[in-house]
Amino acid sequence: MLFAFDRVAELAPQHPKWKTTMPFKAIVTGDKEAMSKFTTKDIEVIAMATHTGMTADAFQTIVKDWWAKAKHPRFDKPYSQMVYQPMIEVMKYLRDNGYRTYIVTGGGQDFVRTYSQQVYGIPVEQIVGSALDTQYTYNKDGQGILMRDPKLLLNNNGAGKAEDIYLFIGKHPKAAFGNTEGDREMLEYTQASGGASLEMLVLHDDATREYAYGPANGLPDTKVGTFSPALYDEAKAKGWTVISMKNDWKRIFDWQK
Amino acid sequence: MLFAFDRVAELAPQHPKWKTTMPFKAIVTGDKEAMSKFTTKDIEVIAMATHTGMTADAFQTIVKDWWAKAKHPRFDKPYSQMVYQPMIEVMKYLRDNGYRTYIVTGGGQDFVRTYSQQVYGIPVEQIVGSALDTQYTYNKDGQGILMRDPKLLLNNNGAGKAEDIYLFIGKHPKAAFGNTEGDREMLEYTQASGGASLEMLVLHDDATREYAYGPANGLPDTKVGTFSPALYDEAKAKGWTVISMKNDWKRIFDWQK
Repeated sequence: MLFAFDRVAELAPQHPKWKTTMPFKAIVTGDKEAMSKFTTKDIEVIAMATHTGMTADAFQTIVKDWWAKAKHPRFDKPYSQMVYQPMIEVMKYLRDNGYRTYIVTGGGQDFVRTYSQQVYGIPVEQIVGSALDTQYTYNKDGQGILMRDPKLLLNNNGAGKAEDIYLFIGKHPKAAFGNTEGDREMLEYTQASGGASLEMLVLHDDATREYAYGPANGLPDTKVGTFSPALYDEAKAKGWTVISMKNDWKRIFDWQK
Repeated sequence: MLFAFDRVAELAPQHPKWKTTMPFKAIVTGDKEAMSKFTTKDIEVIAMATHTGMTADAFQTIVKDWWAKAKHPRFDKPYSQMVYQPMIEVMKYLRDNGYRTYIVTGGGQDFVRTYSQQVYGIPVEQIVGSALDTQYTYNKDGQGILMRDPKLLLNNNGAGKAEDIYLFIGKHPKAAFGNTEGDREMLEYTQASGGASLEMLVLHDDATREYAYGPANGLPDTKVGTFSPALYDEAKAKGWTVISMKNDWKRIFDWQK
């Protein structure tokens, strides 16, 4: 979302109407209160305006350029360092023991693919995410290109995660790790494999080293990345492990002592 | 298609109306002439009736059972032996030299995945094919299941092959092999990678050992798997190699001398 907001600011001079039209107006004028009230539909409108109408290759270049310069507003670190160290370690541990690791994200598949190898050690074909339709066509030299269409092909969230794991990987995972409502079906589908399996949920309960939100476990409520009491209860009932970032993780980020 | 036709015959007792309703009537009554005139729409109706309304796991079992018993009507061999030996060899050669091999098929992704490892040595996650939508839901025991919906999510043919290679693999192939119109865009997209690449098209011109159809190169016309003179011309113009099954392949099937 931060990428999309930055893109709106960058593209605004080419779209004079954005100054007076919501939801763009909120971003262009820096109206933080209006931005905090964005609906799912607002986010979708912003995503489509900033993620489509260019070739797949051009989009990758735009993301890479942003990624190289952008910094996290609170921690003042590049996003390549805003990665949970214990997750890096568990993925390495699994790979060292013959497993293949995937990232299955509600975020944009093409977005995450631009840095997945460098940051997570995971190649592009093992990133499954929300995806726009692309349209194969020809440029003026007659060369085949893929244009990004303003149409969502895969909404890789909730039930979509189970469906897309089946579509891309064709089998049940042996282990799955999540941290929001959007991971419920993925964990259920992992457990439904029949054999031994591992399901874990990370609870963001460390306001000092990262953030604290739920509303599970009495934590503050949130509109993004919700971890509900119902998900917490399902985890307890089904034997899924809930990880407390505060109590169970020695370090959250690599650069923290 | 042969699988779908066999399924119609098997399911017919549960669908009395099929005896009098086209396109099912043609299959149930064995009307070969009517079957030879099936339109794309007819095939789609048959595919939806035979491929949907069950779980993904149930469909795999049905395909495996069919595959174990079915034989090619002309060669009287199981389909696991109706595989082009030179293609098996080139894929092994590529894998032995550090490449990863995929099958990118207009056929059903789930169908091909049931035998891809055994027959081609290719794991399920490296099969990209036409795919139905699935719907995540719960069975009566509350366990997560994927139901196959009568809605085509990916039509992996023509432009769809380039689009789905990008969706699943996220990069241009280094080599691509095809044999029909439906492979044109995949080969173009392979060549558009910029670097060195290999594009090859197999021409079915051996009526004795396999089949002969085009209509490229003066071969008989066909409604299925068409290789047009236009595709042949594009291959010549762009430096793609056209392989003559008759002249270039010592053996077509493993069991042929």
